[in-house]
This record gives sequence, structure tokens and C-alpha cells, in this order.
Amino acid sequence: MSNWSSKETKSQFQYIRLADTLEKRILKGEYKIGEKLPSLRKLHNQLGLSKTTIFYTYIELEKRGLVESRPRSGYFVKALISPRFSRLSSAGNALAPQKSANLNLSNSIVDALSNPELLHFGGITISPTLLPLNAFSRSLKSISSNHIDHIISTPGKPEGNLELRQQIAKRILEDDRIEADDIIITNRCMEALNLCLRAVAKRGDTIAVESPVFFESLSLIENLGMQALEIPTHPQTGIDLDNLEAVLSQRAVQACMVIPNFQNPLGALMPVSNKKRLVEMLGERRIPIIENDISGDLYFGETRPPTLKSFDTKGLVLYCSSFSKTLAPGLRGGWTVPGKFRESIIELKVNLSFYPSNLDQMLIAEFLESGSYDRHLKRLRNALKQQMENLNSAVVRHFPRETKINRPQGGMVLWIELKPTIDGLEIYQAALREKISIIPGCVFSHSQKFQNFIRLNYGDPWTEKLEQGISTLGTILAQFT
Amino acid sequence: MSNWSSKETKSQFQYIRLADTLEKRILKGEYKIGEKLPSLRKLHNQLGLSKTTIFYTYIELEKRGLVESRPRSGYFVKALISPRFSRLSSAGNALAPQKSANLNLSNSIVDALSNPELLHFGGITISPTLLPLNAFSRSLKSISSNHIDHIISTPGKPEGNLELRQQIAKRILEDDRIEADDIIITNRCMEALNLCLRAVAKRGDTIAVESPVFFESLSLIENLGMQALEIPTHPQTGIDLDNLEAVLSQRAVQACMVIPNFQNPLGALMPVSNKKRLVEMLGERRIPIIENDISGDLYFGETRPPTLKSFDTKGLVLYCSSFSKTLAPGLRGGWTVPGKFRESIIELKVNLSFYPSNLDQMLIAEFLESGSYDRHLKRLRNALKQQMENLNSAVVRHFPRETKINRPQGGMVLWIELKPTIDGLEIYQAALREKISIIPGCVFSHSQKFQNFIRLNYGDPWTEKLEQGISTLGTILAQFT
Repeated sequence: MSNWSSKETKSQFQYIRLADTLEKRILKGEYKIGEKLPSLRKLHNQLGLSKTTIFYTYIELEKRGLVESRPRSGYFVKALISPRFSRLSSAGNALAPQKSANLNLSNSIVDALSNPELLHFGGITISPTLLPLNAFSRSLKSISSNHIDHIISTPGKPEGNLELRQQIAKRILEDDRIEADDIIITNRCMEALNLCLRAVAKRGDTIAVESPVFFESLSLIENLGMQALEIPTHPQTGIDLDNLEAVLSQRAVQACMVIPNFQNPLGALMPVSNKKRLVEMLGERRIPIIENDISGDLYFGETRPPTLKSFDTKGLVLYCSSFSKTLAPGLRGGWTVPGKFRESIIELKVNLSFYPSNLDQMLIAEFLESGSYDRHLKRLRNALKQQMENLNSAVVRHFPRETKINRPQGGMVLWIELKPTIDGLEIYQAALREKISIIPGCVFSHSQKFQNFIRLNYGDPWTEKLEQGISTLGTILAQFT
Repeated sequence: MSNWSSKETKSQFQYIRLADTLEKRILKGEYKIGEKLPSLRKLHNQLGLSKTTIFYTYIELEKRGLVESRPRSGYFVKALISPRFSRLSSAGNALAPQKSANLNLSNSIVDALSNPELLHFGGITISPTLLPLNAFSRSLKSISSNHIDHIISTPGKPEGNLELRQQIAKRILEDDRIEADDIIITNRCMEALNLCLRAVAKRGDTIAVESPVFFESLSLIENLGMQALEIPTHPQTGIDLDNLEAVLSQRAVQACMVIPNFQNPLGALMPVSNKKRLVEMLGERRIPIIENDISGDLYFGETRPPTLKSFDTKGLVLYCSSFSKTLAPGLRGGWTVPGKFRESIIELKVNLSFYPSNLDQMLIAEFLESGSYDRHLKRLRNALKQQMENLNSAVVRHFPRETKINRPQGGMVLWIELKPTIDGLEIYQAALREKISIIPGCVFSHSQKFQNFIRLNYGDPWTEKLEQGISTLGTILAQFT
């Protein structure tokens, strides 16, 4: 039990550390839903911590929405969001490909996101206050003095700017087998995904994806004339590999597109063993994996979780990411490491005329070279973790008791399950009338499995206004109960 | 004949003005191929100009490749490039849609264009020395002080930056019915064309295009699963309207994509009457026209030629352009004025995630607002006209006598017809071995009609090295004769 205590001495944080440890065990399933947690006395005896510290630990876990106290009985693991596996436990039941009925809804949601009059829990960007704006301003001045000729007069190369590719290879991707020449710059992560899909599949092909998954990726697949096959996905550990394996044995799947780190909307983090198994399982079948790692740097744990790409020995993982979630939503700085599909992607970029902005690329390269990126990321992760806790505890305070929150392990969204009788779409519409944006769960799947879910963003530092917004949402939910 | 002389007094330029007037008449067909031009004495009597001035006029026209002198007979209109109409005079003969066999060739040509070791007659960009780099540097510094927060933190809107759309509406499009809200910003003109094609047609549809036409537009149509139907195009007056009309009466054409001003590769300029007739002809049939006007500002005449869009009363013309040919090849600054298809284009942009760079848009807007654009364009047009004359006369000097040059009326490319027995592709390959890039005519059509053509670019100020390059090309051609 020594890992429960810590050698650090600041006792006022001991309850936080203990709560973190208990949280991990709960999320890993070591304590099951409904199970009673050890009593104050028992932990006091085991760990040598004061009963007060342990009492605060349980208050903290209650605030995080992980446990509930029952009078005279103690603390119990609260019902977490359960994977939507019930009707999908065998491959035969995996959701058949179908056309999006949600497209118009998605478009109106995207429209709402750019409305400055709304309080935005619907977006998926970080607050400008968390961005390194001064550093960017300095970098841009340096560029206007030193590189303007090149930027203005050079049409650009399909693979993108060499300086940026070098910086990405050096600083961002810890996998030292990856070099600048393996990287291709794109306008955005979505463009990288678009190119990778085109490179590995054609119209009519089936692409396995997580369910739920962010709606733009479903639209992307459909716009390319391909079919998204939704695979049940665990809220904490990501895509269900047994289910995927069963599907692969029964039907032709051309590629698999996944978000192993801090899946959107779940916030799920695939365990390393699952990542290895996924890469092996698809590698054996020669099926390419398109890995979307856009939030991989936004971890709340100790270390950066590994990518699928780092386990790829066959060049079958097409890694995609971008700086838009971590550094600058307004700059165009996506990229892909497409393994053996590099030549196809270059050809596609030439044919589709997908050339990213020289200026954006140069600005990001200049910023990365200044060495401020790691420092910025650390600050950003701390802020996001704090904001997640703020939003989480506000939801615990204001939403109806039956609400279940999926604790994310990184990223910037909270996935929330409402009472089964509540339609998230109605909540979305009622919230819009109160000038609050959220995303209804129905857009994350073509199934009807997520009608009573919503996704909330915590990219902004917590304010009284946000607290008020969550309170208003709570009032709306109470009316629908 | 008073329009032949001028009220200006600088007599050393009288022969240039007279040559310009005669050139116009030749290009309009007022003097036919092989026809004898008026004798020195006759013009001397008619115009009151000295015989020396008239003699220099004819030398100038000879240098331009328009006339040839025959001993003791006088000056005759040289055989110009004839339209490839012979086998295509009726609609039944219009080239049937077919798949590009040239794709790999096109890609290797694009590769060659980015090779810094080559002497580039193959490209279609202007020299950095002709770009307003200092003004851009100033604009960028101003942005880094004043707008960096907005640029870095705002994801951008699908329709693009308002300031840029306002500047385009105000300064670039003289049609005062067009407002900022009618304009949608794109990464490049090619992206605008891509979006417009998707908005008006679907897979399997037929798109009427000029023949010859720049190869990227043929690839674009094919990549969208559509079919390019090539319509014979006159080297001076553009797409053949009788032919197009006959085609329209015989088969389903979903849209027409044309370059009315300084067609690429011909340099052809559609007369105003043809433009009006084209807009009416297609408007009556409710067929959308995608107008590519990327070189419209690069005119050698007195005034900016009108756009098809300016004659459009039904919202059926989808106008596309960009700043890449006139202002900054390295910036992403395309745009479209898609008439009644605006909503479709916005929806497509959202679905395809085509969001242009904030920074590039803001930089162009800032530059336009500084008021330097018109001044820059004037200087650029003068330079290009001079460079066209330089290249033209070098070709006249160094290429075999049978070579025919299509005098462009704007833009930055020269379309050259070689002896019928010469294969432009072999010349392309032989030139590459001498480290010179050109574009072989075969890539501008799926027909076999332009095998003995090449396209040369005159975007760079004339130098001894360029002269030497044309001389080398002349030597290569002589070997193939």
C-alpha cells in the first residue's frame, strides 16, 4: 500500500493525492460500480494518514462525481457511464453503415459555435487567455524582418515547409525513427484525415470507427462516399477490441480510424496493452489504421501516452495531428506521418491542390524553435485539468442526481449521460434559447444510442458566468425530468 | 485613319504605337494570314509619318513574330497558330470525355517546377523581384502588433475574413452589385474551382471546358469523378461558341468551366460580344458557368477586360480568382463569388473543412487597405508586357523558322506551335536534360491535337541566362527537325 502515500510533505495536498490514486483505481475498474470503498478507520490504519485527510479525500471524490455517500453506510462507487455495449456485444450486431441524418443538425451546431452571443460549452477550442500570444507576436515580427521574401514569393511544396517538419520531428514526436521527410504538413488535422482516408480507401469502402465519435469524422467518411462502421467504445479504455476483431472476421473493413488518446467525445485513453493489440491485430490483416492524436499532448497523467504509431513496424499506421487544439486554433498547422502511404498522399495533395499557408507554417516553426512549446503545454495541461475539475464539480452541484459524468483522462471535453428519458437534442435547443451552446449526443453516432448524452467543453478558465451557465443547464434539465 | 496616329509627340515611340495598332488589326483578323501589308510609301502618304518610322514599325512587327518580309515584295502577315478546329467543326466531333492518361506526366512536371536547378520556362508564377515585398513586410509588422490575438485564437469562418472580403468587394471587383457577403474566401483559386464544381455537379456529370486548357483543371474534374468535355477554343478569341452551342443541343452538360480573360495556355481574350453571348446561351439553359479569372488583372491593353460575372443576371456565374498570380504566389488568397450557389459552397466548406489561413487573409487585407495594389498591378503589367516581348523576340530569333507564336493579350504564358512532326514531349525531355523546364502541349488536352505545342512562361525579367535558355531550346528544336 506504499504507493498510496507519498514522500512529499505538503500535508494539505495529501488528500488530493489520495483522491487521485483512488480515482485511478475506480476508473480502472478495481473498485466496481456500487462497491463500498474502505472505511475512514481502515484507511487511517493502512496508510497512517489522519482521519481528517481521509475524510477530505472522500469529499473530493464526491465532488469529482466518482463516489456517493450513503447515510450510516459509508462511501460507494457511483454508477459511471456504462459502455453502450448491451445490444452490441457480438459482431453481428455492430452498427451497419448508414447515411448521416444529422448533417443539417451538425451544420446548425457549427453555425451556433461561431455566434459570439452564446456561452460556449459546445466548442472544442481553448481560451485565448491560455495561448502564448506574446511569443507569437515576437515570432511574427522576426518573420516579417527575416523571411518575408521567401514566404510571399514561394508557392510552397506539397509536403510542406522543411523547418516546420524538422521541428515536429525533433520536438513533438518522441519516436526517434520519425524524420522530417516522413512528415507531411496539412492545413488542419481534418485535412490530414481526409487525405489519409483517400490514400487507403475508395468510394463504397467500409471504415471502422469508434462509437460515439466526433461528428465531423462521420461526415468526412460519408462525403468521400465511404461507409462508417461504428464499433462500441468503452468510455475509459476506448474502442472495444474484441468487438472489432469479431467484425473483422466477418466483413471487409478497408481501414480503421481511431482516437487512442482522449477520444472525442469520451475522453477515453486506450491502455498501452490495447494499443499494442490493436496495431498487431490490424497489422496481421494488412488493414491501415488512421490515428487521430490531436489531443495526445493534453494528458492529465504524469507522462505523455504513447501513440499507435510508436508500435507500428509495418508502416500501416497513418498518424494525424495538428497544433490547433494545443497551440493556435487560428493557425493552419496539421500534419500526418503516413508511413508507407507517403507517396500517395503527396500525389493527392498535388491533385487536390491542398497546399498549407507558408506563413502559418513558418510562424509555428519559429515559435517551436524558440523553445517555448513545452513550457506552454505544461501550463496548458495544468489549466485544463483545473478547468475539468471546475466543470465537473459544477455539474455535480447543479445537474440532477441521476446524471453520470465520464471522467476524462485528458483533452477538453466532458461526456455526460442524462436520465434515459431525456433527449439531449431538446436540451440543446432549450439551452440555445438561453444563449448557451452544448453538443447533443445524437450527433456522435448514427445509432440511437446516445440520445440522452451531451458533450461539454472546458477550454475556458472557470468564471462566475460559466458557473451560472451550468446552473441554468441544471434548471433546464430539472424541467425535463 | 486618324486612330493610327497619335497626338503624343515623342516621335521615337511613334513606330511602337503604329506597330501596336497594326498588331491589333492582325490579331483581329482584319489582315488575313499571308496577306500583304500596305507598302511604306502608302502608309507614309496616309499617315504623314516618315518612311523611317514606318520601316521601324515593320521591323518591330517582324520581331514580334507577326509579319515576314519577302524580298522585293514587302511585308506579309505570318501564319499564326490556327485554331485546332479542322476535325471538330461540328458538335458530333467534339472530343468525348475520357480519362487522363497524363496524370503521371503532370505530376512529374509539377515536381520539375520545384527543382531550383532548372531554368524555368515551365512555371506560371511571377518573379519575386516583381512582388511588393517591402510593403508586405510593413503590413506583417503592423499585424503582429495589432491583430495577433485574433489571428491565433480564432478558428476562422467558412466564408473567410470580413476585412478581406470587404477589400475585394471594394477594390478588386468593379461590379458594384457585388458585396462582401457575396464573396467566399478560399485557400487558392483551385480550391474555389473545386468547391464550385462540387456545388453545381456530381459524379458522372459532364463539364464543358476549353481545349487546350491547363492540366490541373482537367485533373480536378477527373478527381471529382466528373468528365471533361473539351470544346475547341480559338487562340485569340477563346472558346468556340458555335461549337459549344451545337454540343449543348446534343448532350447533357452540367456546367461550363472557362477562362475568358487570358486563357491558360492560349492567352486568348474573349471579345465582349462573345462573353455576353456565352452568359446568355448558358443562362437560357440554366447551365452554371464557372469563371476562372485568375489572370484578368494582367491585361496588356488599355483597360481591364470585363468578367462574365458582370453580365450575369441570374446568379448562374460562379466567379473564381486569387491573388497568387498577381500579388503573392506564397499566400493563400483565393476567392469565389458563387451567385446563387453561396449556401451550397458554405456547406461544402464546412463539410470539407476548407478553412483558409487567418494570417494570410489578414495580411492580404492589410496590404490592400494600404492602397498599394493598383500601383503594384500597373508596374506588374508593364513588366509582364515587356517580358512577353523579350521572350517573343527571343523565340523569333532562336527557334526554327516554321515556329508559330500565339501573341497573348495578357497573362504570363506564350503558346507556341512547332513543326507538325515535332513531339513537344520529346522536347520537354530533351530540355530537362539541359536543365530547362517547359510544358509540353500534350498535357493540355486528352486529344492528340497539341502534341507539337509547348507553353513558355515569361514571369521573370529578361536576362542573358533566359536568352541563352531560349537559344538552347532553339538548338534542341533544330536537332529534331
